Amino acid sequence: MKDSIPTLTAEKTIDVRFSEVDSMGIVWHGSYSLYFEDAREAFGAKYQLEYLYMFKMGFYAPLVELHFNYKKPIRYQDKIKIIITFRPTEAAKIIFDYEIFHLETNELMATGHTVQVFLDTNYQLVWETPPFFNEWKKLNGLL
Amino acid sequence: MKDSIPTLTAEKTIDVRFSEVDSMGIVWHGSYSLYFEDAREAFGAKYQLEYLYMFKMGFYAPLVELHFNYKKPIRYQDKIKIIITFRPTEAAKIIFDYEIFHLETNELMATGHTVQVFLDTNYQLVWETPPFFNEWKKLNGLL
Amino acid sequence: MKDSIPTLTAEKTIDVRFSEVDSMGIVWHGSYSLYFEDAREAFGAKYQLEYLYMFKMGFYAPLVELHFNYKKPIRYQDKIKIIITFRPTEAAKIIFDYEIFHLETNELMATGHTVQVFLDTNYQLVWETPPFFNEWKKLNGLL
Amino acid sequence: MKDSIPTLTAEKTIDVRFSEVDSMGIVWHGSYSLYFEDAREAFGAKYQLEYLYMFKMGFYAPLVELHFNYKKPIRYQDKIKIIITFRPTEAAKIIFDYEIFHLETNELMATGHTVQVFLDTNYQLVWETPPFFNEWKKLNGLL
Repeated sequence: MKDSIPTLTAEKTIDVRFSEVDSMGIVWHGSYSLYFEDAREAFGAKYQLEYLYMFKMGFYAPLVELHFNYKKPIRYQDKIKIIITFRPTEAAKIIFDYEIFHLETNELMATGHTVQVFLDTNYQLVWETPPFFNEWKKLNGLL
Repeated sequence: MKDSIPTLTAEKTIDVRFSEVDSMGIVWHGSYSLYFEDAREAFGAKYQLEYLYMFKMGFYAPLVELHFNYKKPIRYQDKIKIIITFRPTEAAKIIFDYEIFHLETNELMATGHTVQVFLDTNYQLVWETPPFFNEWKKLNGLL
Repeated sequence: MKDSIPTLTAEKTIDVRFSEVDSMGIVWHGSYSLYFEDAREAFGAKYQLEYLYMFKMGFYAPLVELHFNYKKPIRYQDKIKIIITFRPTEAAKIIFDYEIFHLETNELMATGHTVQVFLDTNYQLVWETPPFFNEWKKLNGLL
Repeated sequence: MKDSIPTLTAEKTIDVRFSEVDSMGIVWHGSYSLYFEDAREAFGAKYQLEYLYMFKMGFYAPLVELHFNYKKPIRYQDKIKIIITFRPTEAAKIIFDYEIFHLETNELMATGHTVQVFLDTNYQLVWETPPFFNEWKKLNGLL
């Protein structure tokens, strides 16, 4: 039993693409899915929890839930950063929380979370946390 | 005061594009944003609540919240339909619920909801339901 | 030897999505890749030349060349149709020509072409036309 | 008259997103449009030829032609860089050439070019090179 659970977090600066802006000059909401994905990649690279590693371990971790809450419009010229935080859970899931900040004003622009489950190589849902993921949790002080 | 509130709903059949499928052969979650958008367009066309009409009335209705819950993987060869339902609210918001069904098996593949608010032409949040939207509600038996 | 080569062509009506329009209110050029893909799917469905059929035959047919020429801006409210035409070639390639027309005015909005090659299941380029594709050509009066 | 025309070029490293890979594990061709766009942004930032600057000068520069040629498949784990080069022309156009290289092996993965024209604020095609663009050319030793 651990005294305290460390907070695992990563950060990614995003360059808003012209094509991600809608006809009102504001980032189209569907682009948040991409920004969250960029953040998960940054997290995976920092903490060795990449898609390809999971594949090699025999698992696929599709998103089954995505939620985002928009606070302020992001515009084409804005520089933003996204902070992704691992939310510990005992369930056989990977849950991340996201916060998008304006780089200069530090305003909170949006928040969100995603939930991923584990499928095996036959695309069957896995109800128990896969061994490799328990290993990963131990390695990172979460178990 | 109305005795009963009618349920406003529209339906849209979706052709899954090859480019919407990820390397596991499953529809990439970000594509659900597009499917929900297609459903909103179908709803707007059926009930005269199109983006361009709202623009003409002086309002922009960006998404401020999106949630989706995945039940079963959608594959490239699957035919799906999406049912969008207007969720009545007194707030100055447009809320839709979505259900995605497999066209042949009729299985529920995913659910979700979105929340839109109103901005005026200066991009300022509008706290009161815009007059045109109250008119629209009356016309459709919601007020 | 055939006297005349039939022209194989298919047609697809496109609903422009709000998210495909840029901040100038004009369809973002990257969306043409999607429209061309929609047209290829329509062609494949009409002439039994679908991706999944090719996979089953042991081949993958990635795009190796794409070209588009823009004549007039396509806007959000425009209804367009795309005509895709198979361009016969003796090379081990699939070449399509595309024309995008405005549905009401019948103006030509854009043209383009794509070239696909064949890869086998080891991702190796195939230099000879695969047998299934020669069969397909015969069936359609091209050989 | 200049003795020699300088070559204006910029470079951008691309992180391939999981969502940009198709069901064969290969970057979907439509993603090249995005990579070319990223490269144009990098060029614009380096040489002060950004979209917003052109807007402020009264011009919009939509793509009217895009061509790409694929040499080798780009996979999810690949690190790539894209080199964008300004192609001088006397026409009222902006033409760029693109080369995508594998970061480690330095292999050429794809090439392409794009052509942009100038529209004024009424969306009318401009036949003469806009004054601001001639200024920009002089500043960069092209005139």
